[in-house]
Amino acid sequence: MKKVGVAILGLGVVGGGVYEILTEKKEYFKKTQGLDITVESVLEKNKARAQSLGVKSAVMADSIEEVISNPNVDIVVEVIGGTEPARTFVLKALMSGKTVVTSNKELFAKYWTELEEEAKKMNAGLFFEASCVGGVPIIRVLQDGMQANEIRSIKGIINGTTNYILTKMASENASYEDALKEAQKLGYAEFNPTADVEGFDATYKISILSSLAFNSKVCVENVYREGITGVAKEDIAYGKSMGYTLKLLGIGKKTENGIDVRVHPTFIRNGDPLASVSDSFNAVHLVGDSVGEIMLYGRGAGALPTGSAVVSDVIFAAKHNECYYAPFKNNEKGNKETKFVTDFTSMYYLRMAVKDAAGVLSKIAGQFSKGNISLKEVKQTAVGENSAEIVVITHPALESNMQKTLEKLNKLSEVYGVKGFIRIEE
Amino acid sequence: MKKVGVAILGLGVVGGGVYEILTEKKEYFKKTQGLDITVESVLEKNKARAQSLGVKSAVMADSIEEVISNPNVDIVVEVIGGTEPARTFVLKALMSGKTVVTSNKELFAKYWTELEEEAKKMNAGLFFEASCVGGVPIIRVLQDGMQANEIRSIKGIINGTTNYILTKMASENASYEDALKEAQKLGYAEFNPTADVEGFDATYKISILSSLAFNSKVCVENVYREGITGVAKEDIAYGKSMGYTLKLLGIGKKTENGIDVRVHPTFIRNGDPLASVSDSFNAVHLVGDSVGEIMLYGRGAGALPTGSAVVSDVIFAAKHNECYYAPFKNNEKGNKETKFVTDFTSMYYLRMAVKDAAGVLSKIAGQFSKGNISLKEVKQTAVGENSAEIVVITHPALESNMQKTLEKLNKLSEVYGVKGFIRIEE
Repeated sequence: MKKVGVAILGLGVVGGGVYEILTEKKEYFKKTQGLDITVESVLEKNKARAQSLGVKSAVMADSIEEVISNPNVDIVVEVIGGTEPARTFVLKALMSGKTVVTSNKELFAKYWTELEEEAKKMNAGLFFEASCVGGVPIIRVLQDGMQANEIRSIKGIINGTTNYILTKMASENASYEDALKEAQKLGYAEFNPTADVEGFDATYKISILSSLAFNSKVCVENVYREGITGVAKEDIAYGKSMGYTLKLLGIGKKTENGIDVRVHPTFIRNGDPLASVSDSFNAVHLVGDSVGEIMLYGRGAGALPTGSAVVSDVIFAAKHNECYYAPFKNNEKGNKETKFVTDFTSMYYLRMAVKDAAGVLSKIAGQFSKGNISLKEVKQTAVGENSAEIVVITHPALESNMQKTLEKLNKLSEVYGVKGFIRIEE
Repeated sequence: MKKVGVAILGLGVVGGGVYEILTEKKEYFKKTQGLDITVESVLEKNKARAQSLGVKSAVMADSIEEVISNPNVDIVVEVIGGTEPARTFVLKALMSGKTVVTSNKELFAKYWTELEEEAKKMNAGLFFEASCVGGVPIIRVLQDGMQANEIRSIKGIINGTTNYILTKMASENASYEDALKEAQKLGYAEFNPTADVEGFDATYKISILSSLAFNSKVCVENVYREGITGVAKEDIAYGKSMGYTLKLLGIGKKTENGIDVRVHPTFIRNGDPLASVSDSFNAVHLVGDSVGEIMLYGRGAGALPTGSAVVSDVIFAAKHNECYYAPFKNNEKGNKETKFVTDFTSMYYLRMAVKDAAGVLSKIAGQFSKGNISLKEVKQTAVGENSAEIVVITHPALESNMQKTLEKLNKLSEVYGVKGFIRIEE
């Protein structure tokens, strides 16, 4: 039976999950995979954590050098997260010819090119299933299940924290602040939630997924990003009444004008398969030219779901002795020949607080018309004396036109302010 | 660049899709996969069909012998369907050392062992992604994305024809016969619809999927089968009013008493992720012990979706030069050590036409009680003079107890007949 030695760098949530799966399922993997997998080395400063997981002190390493010089280690699992020291550790592992399996989206999104170059030099494997959408094997599906397709679009709920918050806001009419507090209490959001709520985490993931989907390097800098901190519960309620559900989507599209990749709060139709993906669940919806629509749904985070993805890579790497590299030119700053859409097209939802007076609606409608934006739906509600709320849904328009119009609307004396501004995907 | 020669056996719907993808995407596959794939040989009696697809007569073969003796053919794609001549052709291809890619669920479910033995002898690859759920890469996910999991259950809408019919019956309150006619008109159902509507097609698929999920050979004979021909629109309507959607499910469960595999019409809760899978869409829901819930959703049939799965296997086989064999003892008649549940446990829905008289309900309830079945919900509706309808939903009960009780209920003088009988999965 083939023996496989694994090192784990970092025993945080995911590292703990990986350790648990590899040790508790040792016999199961012998039986079902014909592999005898052993955790040979663990690098973790927090010795108490290691002890609480039952890691024997004999396998505890004191430095990355100790890990990579261990001849029994074939595969190095990096589950530290963040860029440093993860980047240095992964580079050292690859330089020593070890195959690397990582769950680190930030590292991968930012340093994929550098890591891959090092891996190629040493003919070492580089696997990253766990970097995107936790337990859902989306990377494997893109690499080995959809090759017959030119992928038209990828849309995903790829951050569980924000999906939990938005679900809570919608189901309980809660404010962003209250929903965030609840998410923090339950461990779905970090004490410092910026990476999730400002959309950075989703940006890393969609940059990786779009690169694979469109066979072109999509750098983090190519992704338009907007988080959910500005979302008001009033907009969620208005959307609901008009047949929309609000999600933070990662969106990648191949258009005639180039690749269009974004992360922002998005209204989708209630009937959309993504609309019913609630709480901390994740889902990715793909359209391929042969296969049509496909959706994958599951847990995007957590010790065991993400651990499942890491271990799946470990087993794949061990069984197939292969090195998966990007099927595109993996340039640090993208490829010059790849065109990106800078001025994308979208439908828009706007909520404005306005003066309740004759002619206001016509003035506002005129501003849209001047901006070359046609309106699909308009809803005016009296709010108090002299004040009303106007909600508008537009037909598809250019983002640049919308931004200019937004500026002009905010300057109208009849408009107290644009209070809600959300893009729509239909 | 690696050259790959492909032979296609059969130019039906799927064969046509495979031919189209391989020829139209020749340049795309060179660029994205580094493979120069050429259709070197086609076996199809219907020369007019071949001509209409633009197949050059030079590649048309007259016999399987001509196909397999062609030294340019590396991979043989079998998309004839049915057992013969597909079985003989596939065996001959494997015996000559060619890798085989098949979309043939019936062939694979019935002759997997025989085909695999032949493949192993010759070190030839044997791929079957397209045999289950068309364009959805469920086989790849089971083999290479879920290895870290012991799978607890698999539930799937794995037959598009019956899902179309049931969706139609539910949305338009149509009878089975009318919905079937509509499905036939649209090409979703065959002129002879038996394989689909009686559940045979789903049985082949769930036998393959359960085998992979549970690492144990599940033969077609191990699968309990019941089709949708007995489903009345009245039951769909009653179900709806009680919060249930009716689907033909393929179900596989790993229980303490063994593996439980079935195909039958099933009520699921409206909130179940599978409940919103409509029309001819397919979906598979899995529960793994590490990953939790996962669902895959997409087109289960059609020229291009199924063609996409076939071509995905062709590319995988060509790139990795590998032979995927079953990760379990692949015995023709299953393994003696594998235990199967013969008397499964389920919840039940029953609709009875009864005499509208005092004491009827108590007599019926007494019969359930004698059968060791406890009731969860009871609904009685007067229908005409002297007659009423009683709908019952039970708590989980043994199928054997339910069958005995069913027989006794039908014998009660107060019961005109059990008109509806549907299992429930919650």
